[in-house]
Amino acid sequence: MNIVLLSGGSGKRLWPLSNDTRSKQFIKIFKTADGEYESMVQRVYRQIKSVDGEAAVTIATSKSQVSAIHNQLCENVGISVEPCRRDTFPAIALAAAYLHDVRGIAEEEAVVVCPVDPYVEEDYFASLRALAERAATGGANLVLMGIEPTYPSAKYGYIIPENKNCISRVSVFKEKPTEDKAREYMEQGALWNGGVFAFRLGYVMQRARELIGYADYQTLFDRYDSLTKISFDYAVAEHEQHIEVMRFAGMWKDMGTWNTLTEAMESDHIGKAILNDRCENVHVVNELNMPVLCMGLQNMVVAASPEGILVSDKNQSSYIKPYVDEINQQIMFAEKSWGSFQVIDIGEGSMTIKVTLNPGHGMNYHSHALRDEVWTIIAGRGRTIVDGMEREVCAGDVIRMPAGVPHTIYADTMLQVVEVQIGSEISVHDKKKITLRNAESDK
Amino acid sequence: MNIVLLSGGSGKRLWPLSNDTRSKQFIKIFKTADGEYESMVQRVYRQIKSVDGEAAVTIATSKSQVSAIHNQLCENVGISVEPCRRDTFPAIALAAAYLHDVRGIAEEEAVVVCPVDPYVEEDYFASLRALAERAATGGANLVLMGIEPTYPSAKYGYIIPENKNCISRVSVFKEKPTEDKAREYMEQGALWNGGVFAFRLGYVMQRARELIGYADYQTLFDRYDSLTKISFDYAVAEHEQHIEVMRFAGMWKDMGTWNTLTEAMESDHIGKAILNDRCENVHVVNELNMPVLCMGLQNMVVAASPEGILVSDKNQSSYIKPYVDEINQQIMFAEKSWGSFQVIDIGEGSMTIKVTLNPGHGMNYHSHALRDEVWTIIAGRGRTIVDGMEREVCAGDVIRMPAGVPHTIYADTMLQVVEVQIGSEISVHDKKKITLRNAESDK
Repeated sequence: MNIVLLSGGSGKRLWPLSNDTRSKQFIKIFKTADGEYESMVQRVYRQIKSVDGEAAVTIATSKSQVSAIHNQLCENVGISVEPCRRDTFPAIALAAAYLHDVRGIAEEEAVVVCPVDPYVEEDYFASLRALAERAATGGANLVLMGIEPTYPSAKYGYIIPENKNCISRVSVFKEKPTEDKAREYMEQGALWNGGVFAFRLGYVMQRARELIGYADYQTLFDRYDSLTKISFDYAVAEHEQHIEVMRFAGMWKDMGTWNTLTEAMESDHIGKAILNDRCENVHVVNELNMPVLCMGLQNMVVAASPEGILVSDKNQSSYIKPYVDEINQQIMFAEKSWGSFQVIDIGEGSMTIKVTLNPGHGMNYHSHALRDEVWTIIAGRGRTIVDGMEREVCAGDVIRMPAGVPHTIYADTMLQVVEVQIGSEISVHDKKKITLRNAESDK
Repeated sequence: MNIVLLSGGSGKRLWPLSNDTRSKQFIKIFKTADGEYESMVQRVYRQIKSVDGEAAVTIATSKSQVSAIHNQLCENVGISVEPCRRDTFPAIALAAAYLHDVRGIAEEEAVVVCPVDPYVEEDYFASLRALAERAATGGANLVLMGIEPTYPSAKYGYIIPENKNCISRVSVFKEKPTEDKAREYMEQGALWNGGVFAFRLGYVMQRARELIGYADYQTLFDRYDSLTKISFDYAVAEHEQHIEVMRFAGMWKDMGTWNTLTEAMESDHIGKAILNDRCENVHVVNELNMPVLCMGLQNMVVAASPEGILVSDKNQSSYIKPYVDEINQQIMFAEKSWGSFQVIDIGEGSMTIKVTLNPGHGMNYHSHALRDEVWTIIAGRGRTIVDGMEREVCAGDVIRMPAGVPHTIYADTMLQVVEVQIGSEISVHDKKKITLRNAESDK
């Protein structure tokens, strides 16, 4: 099975665990059988591989997520990188071009497109495979998955099928309705549109040629920012006559808000938390290294990360976005291709961060114009290059990098560093990449 | 006026802002006229000085609070340091000995004893002065302040006066009653016992001679840990025949729990916080450098400090102590005589702290057996002595101190340092004070 996972943009609705650089699909919140926690991306990837070990998984996403994907999944997952955000039709057209031109997938092969963040069981991925088989062998150009509604939701679009068979032609699409309208649709056998569909690769390439004059992957990639934002539903699905829907009646949850996310939590807390016995329907997700004590709370979610602390009534948690938009602070935590960093102190004229480098990884060779830096190695072994000079480092070593001096660090084992930045102007933009001529530079 | 402020022990009931090393009276929570925040200790001290600029203030407290008192009040406040905790009678006896033997107060002078943490206005301190005058000139050995009750509280002890005059002889003391009993007492004109009283210094010295064989201050200090724990009420007040009570009808609040403390807050939050318009009767005290977002909360307090995060229904906030007792973690923030420190990262085999030294102050000269330390100066100017060698330091300087090497740092201006500790065993107990022979040692 060829599967394209659409990995969406910044998820402020799950602040403070998600933010501009960290989307909700990367939050490790789901307990696995071995007691570890995995993210939505990891869960979905594991489930796909469990249903179809041969599945070719491609993630369509923006550049900002590439590091997190490499950190959380194995290196050989395909990534179709969108140069900027242009909604689902351009993203799917680019992914189709990537599959054909870069990965060599034939035009006759079926491809399934699916959001990266549904909370589902393995039967869902078995259905995706059935969807792909139908797309490969049936007469329709598009085969949608229609999710059996469990309540008359006003949050989803609806697909009205021609009949109630397992596979039916699509009669009409309906946008997010009122609850009353949704009840009517349900009586007609309507299904939720979860944004899941399968097609033969050549079909979408043909639509892309017609609609945006696609020639090949590289050309499309280069002019991606000139494309109009439009969803796949508007651009393609709603105009297609040869279109079917396949019913899916298994478990499916949309993890878009804290309210729905906490429903999927196995225990009432992740991280350090104490809930007294007067707490009811309370969930705590605590990424900080300090305890959260909850006393006498009802129907609440408490979430804490280096970005901030959310304390919310569960129903009210759907409305946090405008408030989070107003919070304009330093990004406190980020995953990078080489590991991660966390800001641990911000002073006037200084910032202190804790850097974790994964084994075998290193930073770019770079310098800063306006700040000095001091590295104190606190764990692990590795090598630094400062002004062309390489040295081995381990816990306790200190490296000083005055402004203007190029430097980098490589991890031989997992490596942890306290980095103190000192300067009148400390900014992520004050960074100059430098080509390293040393033989070490190929890391 | 001679006034002894009893500064009590660790205040877990206001966790996470108070803890074993930081009592509630030092939390800066009250907004002053100039927009700054002051602590209970600072507020009470300012109020006393405003009513009586000549007042001689002595704080009776444990050693662990001396640094915080010096940081928050001017240096010339008297401190009677209790070598260990022995309840109020030994504490007051020691303070009386301190006043007489160390400060040279005559036995005929009146002394007022008062807890350090009532939330009151200046009329309260005017009443204390009246209390002292009555003790100095009247016939009674003890003159208590009796607070007019505002409701039949089961939280306080009651004083039943012989009559309802402004000053009356005490008929009897009543321990914390039920609410019904309290209602009865109130009908009899009973008053709350706020632990405030005045006496001639010689009276308490005499009682101390009789009850614990007190000879002089130093002797009492040296054998303090052998004294029995007993309150002043049990040991003295309840046996005294010549005892009066003076009514006080002004504003008086006991700041013992989050519920009562938040009543004294001028705005709904201190620190970074956003409350949406669906929040009602919510107070946030946030000492962290990250925002707290509250959505749809009712009757709640949210308090965050480096020690942890409390999210509590206001009524339930009275019951946090047993839960806090179970939290056994690293102290994350402490005030010291030279400034303060905050733990900003704990790793395996490392700890990183941010140290702030006040101008003119320095650490003891000391070494650690089991850890290396690295100081990176992030702000200010000062001097370090490492292994006997002195150097001037400023922002950007780095000082390495391998295990066993003695070191200290002095602040010429306000000085901030990131200290990285590296070692297999990091403990506050791994510290050896060393006598510095250098001329600099007199700092």
